[in-house]
Amino acid sequence: MADKRLLILITNDDGVQAPGLRSLAECAAGKGDIVVVAPERPQSGMSSAITVGQALKVNAHPDMGSARVFSVTGTPTDCVKLAMHTILPRRPDLILSGVNHGSNAGTSITYSGTMGAVMEGCMAGIPSVGFSLLHHSLKADFSLSAPLVSGIIDTVIAHGLPDFVALNVNIPALIAPKGAKTCRAAHGYWTDEYQRYLDPSGDPFYWLTGKFVNSEPEATDTDEYWLAQGYASVVPCTPDQTAATQIASMAPLFDR
Amino acid sequence: MADKRLLILITNDDGVQAPGLRSLAECAAGKGDIVVVAPERPQSGMSSAITVGQALKVNAHPDMGSARVFSVTGTPTDCVKLAMHTILPRRPDLILSGVNHGSNAGTSITYSGTMGAVMEGCMAGIPSVGFSLLHHSLKADFSLSAPLVSGIIDTVIAHGLPDFVALNVNIPALIAPKGAKTCRAAHGYWTDEYQRYLDPSGDPFYWLTGKFVNSEPEATDTDEYWLAQGYASVVPCTPDQTAATQIASMAPLFDR
Repeated sequence: MADKRLLILITNDDGVQAPGLRSLAECAAGKGDIVVVAPERPQSGMSSAITVGQALKVNAHPDMGSARVFSVTGTPTDCVKLAMHTILPRRPDLILSGVNHGSNAGTSITYSGTMGAVMEGCMAGIPSVGFSLLHHSLKADFSLSAPLVSGIIDTVIAHGLPDFVALNVNIPALIAPKGAKTCRAAHGYWTDEYQRYLDPSGDPFYWLTGKFVNSEPEATDTDEYWLAQGYASVVPCTPDQTAATQIASMAPLFDR
Repeated sequence: MADKRLLILITNDDGVQAPGLRSLAECAAGKGDIVVVAPERPQSGMSSAITVGQALKVNAHPDMGSARVFSVTGTPTDCVKLAMHTILPRRPDLILSGVNHGSNAGTSITYSGTMGAVMEGCMAGIPSVGFSLLHHSLKADFSLSAPLVSGIIDTVIAHGLPDFVALNVNIPALIAPKGAKTCRAAHGYWTDEYQRYLDPSGDPFYWLTGKFVNSEPEATDTDEYWLAQGYASVVPCTPDQTAATQIASMAPLFDR
């Protein structure tokens, strides 16, 4: 991809106002023509959701450096779809999503709007990378990881990505990462997921909370392991959820 | 699983009022104690979205046969999480989602709230199956496929499912399926995805539409192929999106 002027689409799930989005646009600056198309409002936990049966609007915002900036009144996946349908002058060469405020390692990829946008780009045949910093605060310091983010972008520009493969990059917080490790996503689950309240009428309602539990704390080849060691994790991931190795063994049970 | 009284959780993404939900509850009747926990409103296209930073409420509805019925003011994934956290008396033995009004074959699994609920159950270690009928109408006839749905439920009850593997079952419309075939999800994409309108002020807005294009029309091992032949497709699928075969070849590029 390195021989022409690239068109780079940047999106996120924390919304067009998020500092992580601006940090990612700064990391990509100078690597091509950049257009930012991000959700108008925060969309954490929106996964690959699309807006069905409702109108979507596109709004222009002040430039970030030399990048034009738009918001969409929908999800991260809506942003990628509408960017490609109507906002961008042509198909982008690269899609970057983030930098997310908080981890998308382990099982969290399933719920991640940041990675929903990445999967959408990947299914459209465009090299797509999501970045997440393990720090929820809007005041998180993205500068310590900027060289690493920039370096990963350069590698993807130089080498591309295989068909139907995207990257989920997670970055430890509060330190300059020791390096980066290509690895798999840890299996895990969330526990104590809801806090229960009583409304003024005495009826219960519930609010999502919870803690991620790594089901494989002994494994040394997972993103959770490398993040705990101070490295960024680079997980090659795919939108094709077929469990291909299971087809032959399950066919005798289910074919009829 | 066949030796004890089963607890079966049923959910969907079309909402607690959808005929497909009632059809699935009828297909499962007699196979265990059934509890229905479905979204209060239609949640098509919600993928694995979770409700973040907002209250969720649980409401009771009239029984469906002998099944107790609840709605949750959130997504299909919220339904599974809240069911397991607070509604069900214990962990369910089986989670069924659907019957969806419309296809979740091919790439559509990515956006499907029906399959979001299934993936949530699978990550929690519970055998989970999604059913979808290739007919969008609320008047779709689910009776032609009821024997097949019932048979697949029986097979899963008898044999279980491997760890981190769930099933995505799609069913042709308007006919009694010729049978069922275990297969992979077809790769494809959506085209002509938005219709553009002008609001009363003359500003544009966009509404999702589009057609699914099968990228592999020649392949004879995909769900799209078998559905076109009049068979139900059974795709083993996994919430683990790691592209495991890519790790070794990508590590030299990204490790640092």
